[in-house]
Order: sequence, then C-alpha cells, then structure tokens
Amino acid sequence: MTGTGTRLHDELIVIDALQAGGDWAPEIIRDIHEGGLTAVHVAPLVWEGPREAIADLARWQRRFASHPDRIVPALCAQDIEAAKRNGRTAIIYGSQNGSVFEDDLDLVWVLHRLGMRIVQLTYNNQNYIGSGCGEQSDDGLSRFGRLVVTEMDRVGMLIDLSHVGERTSLDAIAHSKNPVAVTHANPTRWFVHRRNKSDEVLRALAERGGVVGLTPYPEFAGEVLTTKRWAELVARTVEIVGVDHVGIGTDMARGWADFAGHVRWVRAGRWMHPDESAPESLYPPFPDWLGAAAKFGNVTEALVENGFSRSETAAIMGGNWMRLFGQVLRRDAV
Amino acid sequence: MTGTGTRLHDELIVIDALQAGGDWAPEIIRDIHEGGLTAVHVAPLVWEGPREAIADLARWQRRFASHPDRIVPALCAQDIEAAKRNGRTAIIYGSQNGSVFEDDLDLVWVLHRLGMRIVQLTYNNQNYIGSGCGEQSDDGLSRFGRLVVTEMDRVGMLIDLSHVGERTSLDAIAHSKNPVAVTHANPTRWFVHRRNKSDEVLRALAERGGVVGLTPYPEFAGEVLTTKRWAELVARTVEIVGVDHVGIGTDMARGWADFAGHVRWVRAGRWMHPDESAPESLYPPFPDWLGAAAKFGNVTEALVENGFSRSETAAIMGGNWMRLFGQVLRRDAV
Repeated sequence: MTGTGTRLHDELIVIDALQAGGDWAPEIIRDIHEGGLTAVHVAPLVWEGPREAIADLARWQRRFASHPDRIVPALCAQDIEAAKRNGRTAIIYGSQNGSVFEDDLDLVWVLHRLGMRIVQLTYNNQNYIGSGCGEQSDDGLSRFGRLVVTEMDRVGMLIDLSHVGERTSLDAIAHSKNPVAVTHANPTRWFVHRRNKSDEVLRALAERGGVVGLTPYPEFAGEVLTTKRWAELVARTVEIVGVDHVGIGTDMARGWADFAGHVRWVRAGRWMHPDESAPESLYPPFPDWLGAAAKFGNVTEALVENGFSRSETAAIMGGNWMRLFGQVLRRDAV
Repeated sequence: MTGTGTRLHDELIVIDALQAGGDWAPEIIRDIHEGGLTAVHVAPLVWEGPREAIADLARWQRRFASHPDRIVPALCAQDIEAAKRNGRTAIIYGSQNGSVFEDDLDLVWVLHRLGMRIVQLTYNNQNYIGSGCGEQSDDGLSRFGRLVVTEMDRVGMLIDLSHVGERTSLDAIAHSKNPVAVTHANPTRWFVHRRNKSDEVLRALAERGGVVGLTPYPEFAGEVLTTKRWAELVARTVEIVGVDHVGIGTDMARGWADFAGHVRWVRAGRWMHPDESAPESLYPPFPDWLGAAAKFGNVTEALVENGFSRSETAAIMGGNWMRLFGQVLRRDAV
C-alpha cells in the first residue's frame, strides 16, 4: 500500500460510528486518538438501566477531565469540527438499548442533558419501545415507543436501529421527523444475518436522509474481510443506498478485561440464564488490518486504492455522519 | 401602611431563599410570579434519593416549558438578573437533604448538570455526609462529607446549613472554599430552637461571606410575628452578623394537597414509623401579612417602615443573596 490513503486519512474527518466497550482505560483513549479518529461513538451499555447509564456518563465526564489533550465530549456536530481543528478525538456517547429510558419519558431529556446523544431503540429483544432483531415477531413501535421517538427528535438525540427489529425499524423511520442511523450493520444482500439490514430498511432510511455504518466484524461480514473485500462491501452498499448514506461503524469491542464474561453479558444479559458449562462463544477477532483503532488509516486507504474518489472517501469516512449529526444532535434540548 | 414599600418592592431584586413544597400547581406559579418575587429557591425534597430528585428536576423542566411567561430556571446569578429585566421569576432548585447524593460523589455533578443548585448537607438526621440538627450528638463532616463539600465548590452548588447540626455546620464553613448559606432559620439568640443557629455558626458563616435567610415561620420565630416584630428580628440578626449577611427564606409550604400526610413525611420520612393514631401536629400558619407569596411586598414594606434605609432594604430583600449566588453558582461545572 502506498502512503496516499494515510495522508488523506489525516486530512479527513474520520468517524467510527460504534465501538462497544467496557472500561475505556488510558491505553484505549490513546489508541483512538493516535489512530486519527476525529470522533467515536462509544456505546458501552447493552442491558443497563438509567442508574448505570448515569454512573457511566459521570465516569466519562471524569475521563474528559483526565485526558483533555486527547478527548472531548461531542454534544453536537460543531464539537466534532472543533475536535478536528484542535487535534482531539470527540466522544459521542450512546446506549445500545432504550432500556436506559425504562418506561419514563422524562429520562430522554435527563440522559440527553447528561451527554447521551445516540440510542438504539431496542437491543435484540423486545422492550418498552419496540421489538429487537432477535425476536421471532415484531409488532413495531409501541405507544411509548412512538413518544420516545418524538422526544428524541425534540431534544436532539439520534435514533439508531442497529439491533432493532425490521417492523420497529420501518415504524421509527416513518415516525421520526429526523433522519435516523444504523450505526453498525451490513446489508442482508451482502450477508444474511438477523443483525444485517434488508434493502427495504436501508432504502427507507436513505430516503429520509439517514446513514448506515458498515462493519468488518466477521460475524456480520460473513468472512474475515481483506481490505479489497472491505471496499467491495462498501461499493455494494453504495449501490443500494447511494454514496451519501454510507459510513463506518466498526463494532470494535474495547476494554473488556473479562472478555468471555463480557460477551456473555452482551448476549444474555440478565434476561436469561446462560448455560455456564457451554463452550464459550467468543467475539471473533477483527481482520489484522483493523486490529486497533490506530490502524484506522488502513480503512481510508482501502477505499482510495479500490477506486473511490477523494470526495466519496471523505463522505464515507465521516462526511455523511457529520451531515446527519448536524441535522439531529443539539447541544441543548429545545 | 403607605405604598412606599410596595413601589420599592417592585424595583428591587426580591428573593425568597426557601419555599418547601410538593406539587407546584399553576396557581402557585402564578402566586410567586404575581407577588413580584425575582427568584425563589424551591426545595421540595427532604428524604428523597437521586431517582426521585431526577424525576422532580425533569418535572420542573416541563414546568418551565409550560409557563415561559412566568418562570425560568436559575442556573447562575445572571439568570436571576435576566429574570428581573424580563419580568419573570427565576427558580433556583434545591434539595433539603444530601440524601440525593447517596454515597456517590459523581451524583454531585449529575444533579448540578440537571439543574440542582442548592443542597442542605443533612436534614435533621445523620446521613453519609454529616449530622443533622435533630441528632443528640454531631461528630462533624464525615470523610465523604468533606469530599462532597469540595465537589459542590467545584461544580458551583451552594452549601446550605439550615437543617445541619452545629459541629457539621462549623466543619462545612471551615472546609468550603466558598461562602455558604443558611437559607431559612433564625438566631438562637432570638428564639431557642434546634433549627435556629448559634452566634458561633452565624458569625463563622458571615466571616466567610455567607448569608442567613430569616423566616417568619412561627415555630422558628417563637411567635406569630407582626410586621414590626419581623423588622425587629431582622434588626437583631443584623446586630449579630452585619447587614451584608442577612436575607429572607420564608420556609412557606406550597402545594401540599394531603397537608397532614406531607407534614408527616417531612418530619418522619421513612426512617421512622410514625404513630398514626397520634393527633396531627400541623405546620402552623404564617402571619396573615405573609399568607401567600403574592403578599411579599409587605416584607419589603415592613423594613422600610421600621427604619431600614433603601440600600439596607435592597441588600436584605435580595442583594445579599445575589452576591452569594454570584460567587458560588456556576452555569457549567468546571
């Protein structure tokens, strides 16, 4: 590979639209910062409720105070632009599950005020809001779910459909006055998986101005992608939704000291009793060329070397997310 | 009475440094607004924890949206000045008990971020922070209590000692880098009551720039005050601490639909099992001349008619609180 992509990488606003994680230790903060990421959506919560969400938001507040030379909170798109100018990485905080709202509409404002900016309406399972991609059937947004969508629009919080069921996703796209996101999933047309998205969902999302973040995570990519195959996945998705609606959301898992225990929590939470004697089903490793956020330059390079123009690469690496964030995220709720 | 005081009342920044309360219905919002109050410290929480505090802060957020012509949130002193200019009443939200922090130092930032600006370290009883004025002994600020004081200073939240024990109060005054408040109590020298304050506490508070808010509440005033006796209470307190350290905090109770039930909650909470068969010990009524916030002009008038100068009256009616709020309250935590 030449250095062309790497230099372009340094110029661009580069956004990873989802990294999962537990404890964001100083070495992980360093990794995302030195990898040249302008912004990362960090999404450590999967089954947690409001109390745990509040504790984690406060923990991040202390991290910002501890690493002012590396990270800043992103409360709106302007914060990400400022981070780029100042050589920092902007942290967009999200929850992978609307469980953080319990059945209390006020918690949307509360968590927004504390810095939460992206929420997946459901996480695989049904909750108060709607249904998840792991359920056998999906009746769409609940009464409460429709109010949550309206309230997220009002306060300026991005709706994420990554782990949401098909019908609930289509309902949310139709009901929201704002464009919405799938921060980390691939098209079903590329690889059939319950976490991947149908053409119908992707096209409805794109028609309303939304963005889908593609992931090289092997379980959703169907293979351990080479950089060339990665570029093919991007190209195939662009064919479905257009180049203005594709971004990246790696789904990297960060800071899981008890890795197997964390995978068990992500998959089973407390809503089921997992079979502790079963062999561990691990989170498969990422391709070598994206083994750390510090290798993120390879993602840019893969696009440049496989026929994407400079402007297309800029849109996919972060420009599309910036447009979406600019439309949706508000520093202060109105 | 002449109208002199009333006209001055309209010109001044007038602050009631504590009104207790439950449900602040629209008629109560109207009462405080039409009474010409520039700012009110509303303090509905007495034994509640963080979850209830968050729910109530969100409820106030909705009240601000419902009554934009009458009330605005006060996050710092400038908001109160703006309220005066714009003919609104600024609401300073507080908790009467540090129970809202549980034993979690992060909750100081969290509740500040959600709009809480004044907290009484303890409410009559001992808690994680220190001891209350109702305990038999008081060992002063706990380890956690000292950290809470430092954190309240850092984020810009005013320490209130109204229901705090003697030793814990003196510790807090000494430990805080900011001046502190007693929002609603009278000098012990005026009337001996466990809720009133010794010369030692009042002088230590004043030496560090703090302010004591006097209350006509009959249980702490020792009598149903006439306006003349009210002015005497103010004059006697000025003799102890000086005119720059005296304000008003009525301790009016607002919006208690189940009045006896609310009084029982305030006095017994859930920490004891009250004797439900005992005759009800009611909250004694305020003097007629202060039967509603809308009569607050009488408070100003009482001072003017009993020998206080215009500048002394301005200081006592709100100017001293404004100086203190300006020194302590921050819109955003640093």
